[in-house]
Amino acid sequence: MEKVDGNLLIIGGAEDKTGDCLILKEFVNLAKGRDGKIVIMPTATEQPDKVGEQYSEIFKDIGVSEVEVLKIDCRKDALSQKAQKSIEDATGIFFTGGDQLRITSLLGGTPVDHSLQKVYKEGVVIAGTSAGAAAMSSTMIIGGNGESTPQMGILNMAPGMGLLNEAVVDQHFAQRGRLGRLLAAVAQNPYILGIGIDEDTSVLINREAKLKVIGSQTVTIVDGRDSGFTNVSELKPEQPLAITDVLVHILPHGYCYDLKERKPLLN
Amino acid sequence: MEKVDGNLLIIGGAEDKTGDCLILKEFVNLAKGRDGKIVIMPTATEQPDKVGEQYSEIFKDIGVSEVEVLKIDCRKDALSQKAQKSIEDATGIFFTGGDQLRITSLLGGTPVDHSLQKVYKEGVVIAGTSAGAAAMSSTMIIGGNGESTPQMGILNMAPGMGLLNEAVVDQHFAQRGRLGRLLAAVAQNPYILGIGIDEDTSVLINREAKLKVIGSQTVTIVDGRDSGFTNVSELKPEQPLAITDVLVHILPHGYCYDLKERKPLLN
Repeated sequence: MEKVDGNLLIIGGAEDKTGDCLILKEFVNLAKGRDGKIVIMPTATEQPDKVGEQYSEIFKDIGVSEVEVLKIDCRKDALSQKAQKSIEDATGIFFTGGDQLRITSLLGGTPVDHSLQKVYKEGVVIAGTSAGAAAMSSTMIIGGNGESTPQMGILNMAPGMGLLNEAVVDQHFAQRGRLGRLLAAVAQNPYILGIGIDEDTSVLINREAKLKVIGSQTVTIVDGRDSGFTNVSELKPEQPLAITDVLVHILPHGYCYDLKERKPLLN
Repeated sequence: MEKVDGNLLIIGGAEDKTGDCLILKEFVNLAKGRDGKIVIMPTATEQPDKVGEQYSEIFKDIGVSEVEVLKIDCRKDALSQKAQKSIEDATGIFFTGGDQLRITSLLGGTPVDHSLQKVYKEGVVIAGTSAGAAAMSSTMIIGGNGESTPQMGILNMAPGMGLLNEAVVDQHFAQRGRLGRLLAAVAQNPYILGIGIDEDTSVLINREAKLKVIGSQTVTIVDGRDSGFTNVSELKPEQPLAITDVLVHILPHGYCYDLKERKPLLN
């Protein structure tokens, strides 16, 4: 199984929408720029009109001529050929924030989902912010308190969209003190790499599984592969976690990481 | 220079005061139990009467017969022979929370400070919670936002009491999302070990520099010694930090760590 089959832009939420719009402009650039066709997927939010309109205006301001908001409010909406065609004509797809379970429960296994997987493999960039970021991985975090000691009781996981394999993404990372829950996720299977993305920060991952940080804050890579010990399998829900020898990297804008070799790429 | 010259009980704040009082009972035990003499140092707080009285009642409830609250509100107070005698007669000394700069600026270099260092080297246990914990190390964290990406602008440091060398302590660790500021501290000199202590959790460190976790949450050990790269020396105040290859251990109650060898001690 490949870790990545295309191009992903995974955003930690609260990306700049009024200033330089560094991250959103990067997305537009990857989606063939002004001549591209961007499809906004407000599936995660319960306010798809408002959120879809907000992003639509931003992308138009950046100069994209064709922007479509594809509303999918129930699984039935994800069966339509029109929706499939919208996806298959896109040069870039953008998932907004909201609730990551809405994305997977409304889209999972539908024709629209198939179209998404198809264009992703063909190289169309898939972006997601906040819930749209969390949903990218094979197994996703759907809940769990921040600002808590690492423990099993604070973590809930579910099957994600599977665009990024052998990794789990957490967002609003430093801002919501989420190290504990990401460590708890990694402890369950240290083969899985933890990627904690701060607000207004993103990772661009290409087909070669090279990750690049874009944005104003940092990305925290949590690598438990060489962990010498964890008590995770013996824990009752409220008991605190033990895990030793976890390797952590803090990467700001411009820094790169090789997901296959599990190594920071320094100049 | 030795890392530790005596026995320290360093508490991450908000230790249980109404239930089993696990940590405070451990302190009493280390301070020769009911027959000991405990001196409470409310130096860090601006409400020394209230806070001193609170701890005094708890220790008396646990069964300690001799408990004294030693109020030092100005440097002049720290010159008195009576205060020195109080310290030198103690079997355990307890620093409350408040502001760690009050502890060092009021006590540093005074006769009471000398007495503290003397009894510490003789084996009298020194405990501190919250600000009292932060003040233990040679260089201490005095400020910096939690819930922030690692960056230099969020960190302020000052010379601490110097009871614990080659380490820096942060408290209320998970509860206030303080990984970023502890990483920033460690990045400045990766020889310094970062010890992040959660609320209602403590580390007991003995003369052999063996650390043991006591309490309901966890301790995060941040070891940057093998870090391959950091940009910390080039950063402007608001720029985010880069640091790679930081080793992290999460240790709950009963787990041990060897500060000299920098290794978790597993059974």
